[in-house]
Amino acid sequence: MSKIAAVKGTRDFYPDIMAVRNWIVDGWKDASIRNGFVEYDSPIFEYLELYTRKSGDEIVSQLFSMTDRGGRDLAIRPEITPSLARMVNQQINALPRPVKWFSTPRLCRAERPQKGRLREFFQWNCDIVGSESILADAESIYTAVDYLRSVNLTADDIVVRISSRSMLAEVLKAMGFAEDQLNTIYVLLDKKPKVSDEAFAEMAAEQVPDADLRAKMMQLPEVKTLDDIDALAHTDAAKQTVAELRELFTCLDNMGIGEYCKFDIQIVRGLAYYTGPVFEIFDRSESLRAICGGGRYDSLLTILGGPKVPATGFGMGDVVLEILLREKGKMPEFTSTIDYFVIDAGEDVFDRVLKLACDIRSKGKSASFSYKRQNMKKQFKQADSQQAKYAIVVGEETVERNEITVKELATGQQQSVNIEEFLSSLS
Amino acid sequence: MSKIAAVKGTRDFYPDIMAVRNWIVDGWKDASIRNGFVEYDSPIFEYLELYTRKSGDEIVSQLFSMTDRGGRDLAIRPEITPSLARMVNQQINALPRPVKWFSTPRLCRAERPQKGRLREFFQWNCDIVGSESILADAESIYTAVDYLRSVNLTADDIVVRISSRSMLAEVLKAMGFAEDQLNTIYVLLDKKPKVSDEAFAEMAAEQVPDADLRAKMMQLPEVKTLDDIDALAHTDAAKQTVAELRELFTCLDNMGIGEYCKFDIQIVRGLAYYTGPVFEIFDRSESLRAICGGGRYDSLLTILGGPKVPATGFGMGDVVLEILLREKGKMPEFTSTIDYFVIDAGEDVFDRVLKLACDIRSKGKSASFSYKRQNMKKQFKQADSQQAKYAIVVGEETVERNEITVKELATGQQQSVNIEEFLSSLS
Repeated sequence: MSKIAAVKGTRDFYPDIMAVRNWIVDGWKDASIRNGFVEYDSPIFEYLELYTRKSGDEIVSQLFSMTDRGGRDLAIRPEITPSLARMVNQQINALPRPVKWFSTPRLCRAERPQKGRLREFFQWNCDIVGSESILADAESIYTAVDYLRSVNLTADDIVVRISSRSMLAEVLKAMGFAEDQLNTIYVLLDKKPKVSDEAFAEMAAEQVPDADLRAKMMQLPEVKTLDDIDALAHTDAAKQTVAELRELFTCLDNMGIGEYCKFDIQIVRGLAYYTGPVFEIFDRSESLRAICGGGRYDSLLTILGGPKVPATGFGMGDVVLEILLREKGKMPEFTSTIDYFVIDAGEDVFDRVLKLACDIRSKGKSASFSYKRQNMKKQFKQADSQQAKYAIVVGEETVERNEITVKELATGQQQSVNIEEFLSSLS
Repeated sequence: MSKIAAVKGTRDFYPDIMAVRNWIVDGWKDASIRNGFVEYDSPIFEYLELYTRKSGDEIVSQLFSMTDRGGRDLAIRPEITPSLARMVNQQINALPRPVKWFSTPRLCRAERPQKGRLREFFQWNCDIVGSESILADAESIYTAVDYLRSVNLTADDIVVRISSRSMLAEVLKAMGFAEDQLNTIYVLLDKKPKVSDEAFAEMAAEQVPDADLRAKMMQLPEVKTLDDIDALAHTDAAKQTVAELRELFTCLDNMGIGEYCKFDIQIVRGLAYYTGPVFEIFDRSESLRAICGGGRYDSLLTILGGPKVPATGFGMGDVVLEILLREKGKMPEFTSTIDYFVIDAGEDVFDRVLKLACDIRSKGKSASFSYKRQNMKKQFKQADSQQAKYAIVVGEETVERNEITVKELATGQQQSVNIEEFLSSLS
């Protein structure tokens, strides 16, 4: 019969690949916990409506959707934020605020696989719900950087590009744009870094026919600093949002990650539901997609039938992160090892081998032995192939005196020890 | 707008529920590693054919299946063994044998939810591929019991019921059954414990019309010991399989888990692909479904286009396990805590609070602070609600001398310490 392959865009996590995934996910968890987040998770599938209500029907083509026996439309989660909003909504009155939750969900998107983008991946999510303080935004960004710093990515390797959706909105309104024109401009500005200047001018002419308004809008991509944007913020509301963004940068400085952070007016985060500060983390050479993206979203809970509750958070995928770590030579080597490989010097003492291996395990150490009764040389070879740290030989005569030989395989050093003494040394 | 609920038969893992899941899964991982298994994982979805080829088209109604943009039929994994077989097949010549792999996959089945059975669950899988030794079967059973023992389930709480599919086959053939009748008898015996004696007699009369053969077959449910079955094993082949099962029990005794294990001829494991020893673990009161099931399956790789390679393993789900642990009062209490909650004695020193919290985190400890600038009483209240172990007060005057007050919240004991000395005490 023919062999069946894995589905394109998914990964088989063989032990060496699994070790990398575990290292990444464990690092995410550690960073979350030391920053005061607690872990949650959602089901892998939800009612399809959870996604269409937030993102419209066009999202359906990007989802793996299915129908259950009762004819209900379901979909595998393409992101966890809608589930988070659903879960928080359900217990909104019972949860002490701020809610600081993290998760490392497996997500699936029905996209065409390409570099840095697979159909199945893992994504670290941290969210702070119930605080409108800029400190919550600062803490969200800090947590992402804290992890990246812990895997030795320096400010020379990565940069956090930060802007504010509310600031952009107020500055555009100060320029004379109407509320219902804003989304058009967000999409336009979001595309700016991805297209040529000519193509951008053409798109701008089409979307903003008013030449005066367009000229003002064209100033925005030229903005480099907060002082530049302050000069364009003519209303009190606009000035207020610039001041808020300045405060965010001050916090990030005080938190010790100022060198990672940079104001960048071009960070818009597409058409998504952001309402305040937004950020994306990139490799400095910008050869890869964003490693991480997030921001403040104060209206998501209402879209799902809940009250208006302020929220901020981010997502970081494993795929681009892994590519970057490999490119920078910052991925550690992983070897799976066992502590003890127990060898019999003859078939008659195998019962003792079995008992000893189990006794070692009951002390919390890992132990293995050969299923085949074979000569010691072959058993030592198997110990090597399993990368055991120590081999233990149970000899036919020595075991009568309750003694075993413990050999450190890296150095070849060995000694005879009493079995009980050896076992009690393990606890 | 109306609220959207979670899909029936799935679970929302709020932090307190997530803590239970993590405790169970981490325990599985620890037990796997100390018994010499290494971790792997498969994609959450596979080509539908991977499941139909192993289990026939009737499996489709139990799967969550979907179609991708290219029109290919996919399904969420209902078990991981087919993926394991696919992955081993793919690297069959590169993998040193025996392959000892474990995984703790999330699985989905389109079943009607009921007690102990959900549509989404986690299952611990350990498999040993490439050894036909009975020691591999013993180690598989040992590993399952080793975990259950580690969560304080004693031989009074649970029992491992063990039989052998090959033994049953040889005994049935010794009785005069033909090879092609065996599956019928497996299904019949599998149903025996679930139906009344009358219903069983009726089913038996229907499936085995030959009165003489049927009378012999009816002896099987009466078999209580290996001696009983030895008396029915009239051929050398049958005697050989009984001897093998005796050897398995001797190994389990030598491994120190004899008291957990019991021979039970009624363990058949349905129509699945087992070819040798089979086992199921139950609570002693038998009020719940099986906690764990497994056995030897020497032909699975060939079904998926690979060579014939011996294999044995088991699966243990989280749902029944959790019910049993709760019933037995063996589920620990989990509280999420943070190490330090940093409090400002006045708004002016908040910068120092922020810096200190980040410095504590950089030492690997968890730290939190209030987003709101509010009086100390309210900040202490927040420290309590986050179950902080210590509160740290940054005072307006003391911080000038580089001093902070560290208060243990459980005892109320507090002391003033130098900031640098405090931080270096954390590493």
